[in-house]
Amino acid sequence: MMKPIRVTVWNEFRHEKEIGEVSKVYPQGIHNAIGDYLKKLDGVTVRTATLDEPEHGLSEAVLAETDVLIWWGHMAHHEVRDEIVDRVYGRVQAGMGLIVLHSGHASKIFRKLCGTESGQLKWRVIGEKERLWVADPGHPIAAGLKEYIEIPHEEMYGEWFGIPAPDALVLISWFEGGEVFRSGCCFHRGKGRIFYFRPGHETFPVYHQPEILQVIGNAVRWAAPVEGPVLTSGNTQPLEHIMENHVEGRHF
Amino acid sequence: MMKPIRVTVWNEFRHEKEIGEVSKVYPQGIHNAIGDYLKKLDGVTVRTATLDEPEHGLSEAVLAETDVLIWWGHMAHHEVRDEIVDRVYGRVQAGMGLIVLHSGHASKIFRKLCGTESGQLKWRVIGEKERLWVADPGHPIAAGLKEYIEIPHEEMYGEWFGIPAPDALVLISWFEGGEVFRSGCCFHRGKGRIFYFRPGHETFPVYHQPEILQVIGNAVRWAAPVEGPVLTSGNTQPLEHIMENHVEGRHF
Amino acid sequence: MMKPIRVTVWNEFRHEKEIGEVSKVYPQGIHNAIGDYLKKLDGVTVRTATLDEPEHGLSEAVLAETDVLIWWGHMAHHEVRDEIVDRVYGRVQAGMGLIVLHSGHASKIFRKLCGTESGQLKWRVIGEKERLWVADPGHPIAAGLKEYIEIPHEEMYGEWFGIPAPDALVLISWFEGGEVFRSGCCFHRGKGRIFYFRPGHETFPVYHQPEILQVIGNAVRWAAPVEGPVLTSGNTQPLEHIMENHVEGRHF
Amino acid sequence: MMKPIRVTVWNEFRHEKEIGEVSKVYPQGIHNAIGDYLKKLDGVTVRTATLDEPEHGLSEAVLAETDVLIWWGHMAHHEVRDEIVDRVYGRVQAGMGLIVLHSGHASKIFRKLCGTESGQLKWRVIGEKERLWVADPGHPIAAGLKEYIEIPHEEMYGEWFGIPAPDALVLISWFEGGEVFRSGCCFHRGKGRIFYFRPGHETFPVYHQPEILQVIGNAVRWAAPVEGPVLTSGNTQPLEHIMENHVEGRHF
Repeated sequence: MMKPIRVTVWNEFRHEKEIGEVSKVYPQGIHNAIGDYLKKLDGVTVRTATLDEPEHGLSEAVLAETDVLIWWGHMAHHEVRDEIVDRVYGRVQAGMGLIVLHSGHASKIFRKLCGTESGQLKWRVIGEKERLWVADPGHPIAAGLKEYIEIPHEEMYGEWFGIPAPDALVLISWFEGGEVFRSGCCFHRGKGRIFYFRPGHETFPVYHQPEILQVIGNAVRWAAPVEGPVLTSGNTQPLEHIMENHVEGRHF
Repeated sequence: MMKPIRVTVWNEFRHEKEIGEVSKVYPQGIHNAIGDYLKKLDGVTVRTATLDEPEHGLSEAVLAETDVLIWWGHMAHHEVRDEIVDRVYGRVQAGMGLIVLHSGHASKIFRKLCGTESGQLKWRVIGEKERLWVADPGHPIAAGLKEYIEIPHEEMYGEWFGIPAPDALVLISWFEGGEVFRSGCCFHRGKGRIFYFRPGHETFPVYHQPEILQVIGNAVRWAAPVEGPVLTSGNTQPLEHIMENHVEGRHF
Repeated sequence: MMKPIRVTVWNEFRHEKEIGEVSKVYPQGIHNAIGDYLKKLDGVTVRTATLDEPEHGLSEAVLAETDVLIWWGHMAHHEVRDEIVDRVYGRVQAGMGLIVLHSGHASKIFRKLCGTESGQLKWRVIGEKERLWVADPGHPIAAGLKEYIEIPHEEMYGEWFGIPAPDALVLISWFEGGEVFRSGCCFHRGKGRIFYFRPGHETFPVYHQPEILQVIGNAVRWAAPVEGPVLTSGNTQPLEHIMENHVEGRHF
Repeated sequence: MMKPIRVTVWNEFRHEKEIGEVSKVYPQGIHNAIGDYLKKLDGVTVRTATLDEPEHGLSEAVLAETDVLIWWGHMAHHEVRDEIVDRVYGRVQAGMGLIVLHSGHASKIFRKLCGTESGQLKWRVIGEKERLWVADPGHPIAAGLKEYIEIPHEEMYGEWFGIPAPDALVLISWFEGGEVFRSGCCFHRGKGRIFYFRPGHETFPVYHQPEILQVIGNAVRWAAPVEGPVLTSGNTQPLEHIMENHVEGRHF
């Protein structure tokens, strides 16, 4: 029997508490909207964590038991403490999966993992139509989808998006107002796999839409850690017969 | 007439001053060994900069006039001030080319641009043979090479090397003692292009070897900035006819 | 002084002769519209070739003197003889650049180089607006562009486009009617580099638009051959000292 | 409950019948050595097929029931009928996984899927040592491995290997005699995923080595088809409100 994938859904959880129209869309918070869906999947266990908990809910213990971390943040990226960012970063390098949602593009953790100014993009909130077209139809994250996902009303994000070229580009968005966006992007960092997924503005019920939840569920399975090699580094012995004909050299 | 490519060769420049056997190999420092070669190329101008100069020789003014920065560091990575690292980082995002040499793999700037622990690798200094095999023979950085470059005595670097998958893999090293290494790696970050090039231990005369200098020269031309689009970001107007049928939405 | 880049612009050249409205847009043929622009560039020489010439204008001699081949075809892909396709294919593997335009996506040569059914896409001809957004602003093919190119009236091409993931994705199209498309795609094949560029329906004056011609000119410079290594293959001698401890083995 | 992955192991099966020393290593043929291992895996069913069966054992019916096809061939690539190659090719585009082993690099099907002369490489049979280093330790195909796999005696394959840059590079080989090789390479073609895996010369017991079999088993799971979107192509309707302001245009 396969071990369950242990997911932690992290949410800044401020908009929902401070702004009435957001709390109407996500009365239990975005983290619970997503978490409630994931709980129904076979072989997935779910917990949530939020910014205002101690250590933002991301203690060493919690992260040690997290296979895939989902991240939604927006207005308080700067409040996330650097030591927690470094902790998450270290876990990703060690193999933890990370799914970054929507405005999480500008989070400290995603910028640090990109090595670029991933906060850079165009935006607009007029509730225009979005279509996310599948660009890699054989990718596991596209399982169960149609050729495109249509979101009737969304915030627009437009290129240029300040990310490195993704290792796989699964979804490309079209927006009614004239823009495109790389909306479903896979990255490998260390032993960890990262999926950036664009949809999800807090004033639209995007995380109640079945296809969007399906993508998040697919991404959880795709990003789950692999039991790859234990990696060593540092000074290393050569094959034996090589030692005989070596020359002098020093390492300072 | 084409504008010249303005190169700054940055060197930590400590080994050469502190260790006799290094100063014999590079009496004017590694930066000048490389710089002297580049000065002979058409359409390239060269300056050098070192750690112990004010602002490490990398003032705003110097970087503003640098098209491609070459980086060699080793024993004093931690002495490079974070504000200078951020300055170089910003310039790369804006389009400056960066060539990271050998032990520069563990520099602050390369780790920040990778989004990984690029300091992670195996090493050994017994002066063994290295062969750098061309893996992408149509790449501009492979111009003028034979199928492989042989270095008679070098420090070994072995996988796993903690980098993201490069956007192009130009050279793969073979080492006598049993290891391989991704030795010529291209990355795009923002508008800037980065080339990591493995050879160059300070106790071996690697930067006097013509093929090695040829690769560095090729990489300078490849990494030179492109006059691409002026990028804008933030709140953006839609195509006009879209405005008519928009719905309410707010951005907090 | 640099050697000139020798370009051959190949055009099927049937629409222009058979259909009045096309001949009004391209009275000298699409090949000459593009060729006339390229002739004005420094360091570029141009010839043209068309389907109905002997050997489709692509004799061994012509291809031997071609650094970059530009390909436009549409209604007569099946009339291109397989031996000429194989000849072009061989030249690309050996380093010749290839720029495939618009409906050339379904040509024999592009399908053969893709290893996929690149003819597969959606299309529509209602003269809708297209915007080609720059996705890789530091790429040489984006030189001199703004953030997007707008074409007022074009044929739509929509995903899914049956290509392998490109080695670099430079341009992504937005279409008024609801689709997106990977419109500027780089591929490496053998020592050759290939650029697929989407715009160019024969009933719209797309190849008279300056930004479109600029991209084609940029792509010519990017795809020009590199003097990389002479490649060898087959049975190969090992390093000498290895021979001593080899075991028996045979190759049938 | 998950559907089983249906594997067909295809083998040319000539060496084993014609050459005594090969038949000693693989008395039941290479296909059965691999198939017997795969049969022990959970959720995998196995059949075999060989060149000299009718339709090479790859009838429409067999391929329709194959999720992942494994391919070993060497001396008789030219005897594989083009119509069968086209059939396999079509199935890969439609989503079937394909694992190409060792000398299968020069098979018609792999060359057609690469779009390059993948037969091009260096080789040598002196039974030298090979080490396959893991270059992507978080990749599913690296599950359960150590940092490298050592094969005590193998045929050497050396760069340059005439493939396109793989979508993921999982393993890089080191050979005692001085060469390196991209030995574990992932490609996407259409909806299908392809893994090229280098080891496996017919005179060495490579397919009895547990780590080699582990990689093949991992690759089977990785390459298994995904139920992605049903893809459509051809003339496509636009969003309705766009129709109002279209201009004339024709598609010939």
